Amino acid sequence: MNKSMSDTQTLLSVRRRIIGPSVKLAYRQPLHVARASMQYIFDADGRRYIDAYNNVPHVGHGHPRVLEAAVGQMALINTNTRYLHENLQRFAEALIATLPEPLRVCYFVNSGSEANELALRLARAHTGAIDLIVLDAAYHGNTNTMIDISPYKFNGPGGRGQPPWVHVARLPDVYRGEFKSTDPHAGPRYAESVGERIAQLRARDTGLCGYIAESCPSVGGQILLPEGYLAAVYSEVRAAGGVCMADEVQTGYGRLGKYFYGFEQQNVIPDIVVLGKPIGNGYPVAAVVTTPEIAASFDNGMEYFSTFGGNTVSCAVGLAVLEIVKSERLQAHAEAVGEHLLAQLRPLKDRYAIVGDVRGTGLFLGIELVRDRDTLAPAAAEASETTNRLREDGVLIGTDGPYHNVLKIRPPMPFDTDDADALVRSLDKALAALGS
Amino acid sequence: MNKSMSDTQTLLSVRRRIIGPSVKLAYRQPLHVARASMQYIFDADGRRYIDAYNNVPHVGHGHPRVLEAAVGQMALINTNTRYLHENLQRFAEALIATLPEPLRVCYFVNSGSEANELALRLARAHTGAIDLIVLDAAYHGNTNTMIDISPYKFNGPGGRGQPPWVHVARLPDVYRGEFKSTDPHAGPRYAESVGERIAQLRARDTGLCGYIAESCPSVGGQILLPEGYLAAVYSEVRAAGGVCMADEVQTGYGRLGKYFYGFEQQNVIPDIVVLGKPIGNGYPVAAVVTTPEIAASFDNGMEYFSTFGGNTVSCAVGLAVLEIVKSERLQAHAEAVGEHLLAQLRPLKDRYAIVGDVRGTGLFLGIELVRDRDTLAPAAAEASETTNRLREDGVLIGTDGPYHNVLKIRPPMPFDTDDADALVRSLDKALAALGS
Repeated sequence: MNKSMSDTQTLLSVRRRIIGPSVKLAYRQPLHVARASMQYIFDADGRRYIDAYNNVPHVGHGHPRVLEAAVGQMALINTNTRYLHENLQRFAEALIATLPEPLRVCYFVNSGSEANELALRLARAHTGAIDLIVLDAAYHGNTNTMIDISPYKFNGPGGRGQPPWVHVARLPDVYRGEFKSTDPHAGPRYAESVGERIAQLRARDTGLCGYIAESCPSVGGQILLPEGYLAAVYSEVRAAGGVCMADEVQTGYGRLGKYFYGFEQQNVIPDIVVLGKPIGNGYPVAAVVTTPEIAASFDNGMEYFSTFGGNTVSCAVGLAVLEIVKSERLQAHAEAVGEHLLAQLRPLKDRYAIVGDVRGTGLFLGIELVRDRDTLAPAAAEASETTNRLREDGVLIGTDGPYHNVLKIRPPMPFDTDDADALVRSLDKALAALGS
Repeated sequence: MNKSMSDTQTLLSVRRRIIGPSVKLAYRQPLHVARASMQYIFDADGRRYIDAYNNVPHVGHGHPRVLEAAVGQMALINTNTRYLHENLQRFAEALIATLPEPLRVCYFVNSGSEANELALRLARAHTGAIDLIVLDAAYHGNTNTMIDISPYKFNGPGGRGQPPWVHVARLPDVYRGEFKSTDPHAGPRYAESVGERIAQLRARDTGLCGYIAESCPSVGGQILLPEGYLAAVYSEVRAAGGVCMADEVQTGYGRLGKYFYGFEQQNVIPDIVVLGKPIGNGYPVAAVVTTPEIAASFDNGMEYFSTFGGNTVSCAVGLAVLEIVKSERLQAHAEAVGEHLLAQLRPLKDRYAIVGDVRGTGLFLGIELVRDRDTLAPAAAEASETTNRLREDGVLIGTDGPYHNVLKIRPPMPFDTDDADALVRSLDKALAALGS
């Protein structure tokens, strides 16, 4: 056993003893990381991995301009929103400039969980109602209430089931769901499931607080919503007095290539937009943007204070990330690289029976593995085997979806066509090995 | 109007337009901050303020070793707990070394709110029960469930009242409460209030999830729990099958001078300890430490993942802060400076009728202003006037307590005797001016 292997074994055994066992490691052979640069991670032995999984380092691991912004501000002052400082307003103005009217009021917090928590508080304050419609297989965070609104968790192992105020609408999955991609009306048809939940609430004379969904369900299986889905849903939700919330934690800031935000793909404007993971490039930053009307409803006498949210450093970092996304044209880059990658991934369907579906846009992609193309029996073990083989081959991807059979690709945005080609070569090898 | 004043006005008007109005500013004349160093903040005009309020920059604003740790790790790799990296184990080991057995298993998150959320999830998983006992006037965070368990919020303006699963025990306030500091049995007597809540649950055949309290209630009014209180409470809670949680977000890491954690002052060992604000010195870091048994109960099949919690940078920062607390002997410093400060604050009671109580330990102090020493009618307007005058005089403190009449002093730990003397001089002037 060489030195770094024994270090890794020691780390593992210490970790098992003093870190909560629910905090899991990826891969059957955990990756002992040492450094990273842009779209690459290097392990303790100096081996390079193409990072095709981590969307948090959005503009690239260790991007020098982000580092500079963080360091520069940390050296000056790191303090909270109870004092006036330019950075809060600067970041808020830059963020608002990426969003359509009437999304004009910002709140800053530390994580996607906290941002979704706040979105729900805003919606409840605005409507005076509690009941919420969510998508099946959705995940919105790790706090008590976020577990309560995440079927992926409350229906999963260790889950305590669905709270009475949460109403689960059908996941608009045109591959695995009832209405397929071949159905031009799949969008509105899936939306009917939301209408049914609203009708049930009306029948019980219960008010609707709102509807929340990821603009592209990610743990749900890297799903693109079918055309016309959100327009129909938003219209029904608003007619029932509810607030429409878009969880853009996975999709924001140009990852989808054609769209800066996922809701644009659906031609709707949410009442509340939730941003997380990528917007701080690894520094804990998240945000909620809403309308002046909803913000006014929330201003009911109760102060909202986040100790770290909107502090001078997180805003400096957030602003730098947004500027880099623009100045390095990462959205256009994601579109081009995504097309290049998809063009090579799609033919895998013809070569491997197990590849049931290849989907996504930009650098938000999913490959669904099935044991049978008619029954769509999920090939979860094979998906896990594939990600592990890729890891051994120097490429990091993950699995997700309610059946854990969807290969999940969402790299840092600097991921380029060479990386894409390398990923495809590794994937091709791994899929071929599955068959053998 | 000079340049910086007009900048401040512009900032204010932009802020009013694009930042949620529930996010409040301190002081009638908001402080436009520019930089900070150790226990001092400098405004946009270069004026220096003694920071006697912010406990977040625990080892000092912009401490160079914290900066170095953050920068060094950000340049290497900033990634999550699904990969192995030394920093997670190192920080966890250092943290555990500050805590008694059996507190041996760590979880890392981004904020006190998230840490209290996780503590509640742990307690619920361990007990299978939902119902929780909290202290009156407590504050545990800004998420939906934390508002639900915070009487300071749910009974305050904009609050929606007490949820049925939350049970409020009497705040053991020996100044304002039923049992006074002169009562040697005040501790056990206040604990009876918890016993009564447990008896009510038993009568309804409802299980007890646990009890949570700040080890020194801070928004409750900078209160020190009376002797024997927590020992009696913990014994009753455990006998009823509940989990005992200590929220050390305000009190951790030596602030109390004599004690590294607030629970030590009460001679108890909690089942779950919650840490936040100071432990990252401004970088968003929070932690939950519990027993192997509770951690095992939580390992029920549901993964716990925090995108940023426990990442390589937050652990590097957390470890640096802990090392600085030790190497700079900040606990002993807080004890000495706190005693020096208290010795000067106590005589203010004799000189000003409005000073009803001076309390605290180390650098966690409260001065309660009352209009009448018999009725204890809260002097909230006077407390606000006092903090504003101090701010104008170059000293930053705050107000808190259920009646907003307690002057709150909890400076960065490097705050020294000269700063203490300056604070007392300013306070003396402000209190004298109130009388005139």
